[in-house]
Amino acid sequence: MPETPPNPAALTPGQARALFRAGLRTPTAGWCAGWTQANLIAVPRAQAYDVLLFAQRNPGPCPVLDVTEPGETSARLFAGDLRTDLPGYVVYEDGEPVAWVADVRDHWRPDLVAFLIGCSFTFEDALREAGVPVRHVEQGRNVPMYRTDRMCRPAGGLAGPLVVSMRPVPAGLVADAVRVTSRYPAVHGAPVHIGDPAALGIADLDEPDFGDPVDVRAGEIPVFWACGVTPQAAVTHSRPKLAIGHAPGHMAITDARDSAFAVP
Amino acid sequence: MPETPPNPAALTPGQARALFRAGLRTPTAGWCAGWTQANLIAVPRAQAYDVLLFAQRNPGPCPVLDVTEPGETSARLFAGDLRTDLPGYVVYEDGEPVAWVADVRDHWRPDLVAFLIGCSFTFEDALREAGVPVRHVEQGRNVPMYRTDRMCRPAGGLAGPLVVSMRPVPAGLVADAVRVTSRYPAVHGAPVHIGDPAALGIADLDEPDFGDPVDVRAGEIPVFWACGVTPQAAVTHSRPKLAIGHAPGHMAITDARDSAFAVP
Repeated sequence: MPETPPNPAALTPGQARALFRAGLRTPTAGWCAGWTQANLIAVPRAQAYDVLLFAQRNPGPCPVLDVTEPGETSARLFAGDLRTDLPGYVVYEDGEPVAWVADVRDHWRPDLVAFLIGCSFTFEDALREAGVPVRHVEQGRNVPMYRTDRMCRPAGGLAGPLVVSMRPVPAGLVADAVRVTSRYPAVHGAPVHIGDPAALGIADLDEPDFGDPVDVRAGEIPVFWACGVTPQAAVTHSRPKLAIGHAPGHMAITDARDSAFAVP
Repeated sequence: MPETPPNPAALTPGQARALFRAGLRTPTAGWCAGWTQANLIAVPRAQAYDVLLFAQRNPGPCPVLDVTEPGETSARLFAGDLRTDLPGYVVYEDGEPVAWVADVRDHWRPDLVAFLIGCSFTFEDALREAGVPVRHVEQGRNVPMYRTDRMCRPAGGLAGPLVVSMRPVPAGLVADAVRVTSRYPAVHGAPVHIGDPAALGIADLDEPDFGDPVDVRAGEIPVFWACGVTPQAAVTHSRPKLAIGHAPGHMAITDARDSAFAVP
């Protein structure tokens, strides 16, 4: 496996994808500054309408950035190979994760449709520019993600809970965090919740369902954003025959600029 | 047929829909101030993925506000009956308009999925509040709409040209028109073109493809917005077996507020 380069923020998407294709497995927060990262969910064409309708009905967690034609292995926004150029995948059969792998060529089928879904890593540069700390990047960890007790609006055979990411924000900067991320509605936008994790049904911030826990310091408030792992939680909940997702936090690094998803 | 009421702007969506259900046929610009209007396109479930993907790939003309389950005759945003409560419909068979009617119950099928697509009438109150005239409302006409020579990005079996609506704007207010409508991305947002109609392949503003011509006065510039009739132009172009749309300008008046579709 290649080593993590000293300054992953400075890489181009093509350079990062080459490392992942060569086998590097790593969360991607902080990589390729200025380039948009995306969640992946791929399903057979027969289930693609349900996924697209689920996304339309749940635009907070599931903003669709791109959709492939069946069998395509690259996308308009992603010049690499969707089967090899992410730093981690999960393969689901009947809703169960059956493989956590760095390459899904053996699982790919010609009828698979891949959806690229917006990722909140996209607004993290803007948060830092506004002086809001991004703790998981500071700590060199994956972002913590949690299944909530809020159910998404179902679509066809797909239902499941909202998944959120969490960033601890100093109380005096929470308004800034809201203001900055509101400008990025296509990558989850403003927080869905600020404060008490119990209000989302989260029992313990130190036990995320995906990713790593991070330090929440005195005077900081946990702030929660909708997360593009939500379609994978729907797969777990609804148990379709086959689905392939990215490993949470191990994103598709696209050829689109973060600024393309900002509104004035 | 009922008469047009003296002040249609003051009606509630339910009152307007009752008039349409009773047979009133009229364009709806200026009706039910503050309530969102929407385009309708209904297709069999087998074609619904193509429509939803076409919309995802062409979000300017096709912002999806709501999608029904197959066979449903009302929607989350529309408490009325989608088959009777619009003031006009077009039924397409093999891409040909075979009926322009006030009631499509005879054509409805249990596998039809209805899409409600954002409509630029939604931002016309905001334009007027900003002092930008809305000529077709002033003149008591339907908005003029034109097929352009710009092709949409295709999806599955659906392809076709971008359709636009046109409002003449005094030169000194064009920037205001852009600024105000930019705040409504879910109902077509900012103009797609300002000025010379020939740049869109429009030969004569006095000959719209849908709706009525309006006066363009000295010192005014034609301003063009993406239009939710675009899916119907794709139906005409791609010739699916069956589709049902609203008669252009004769919209579904929903139970959602215009303000729900504004961004800060």
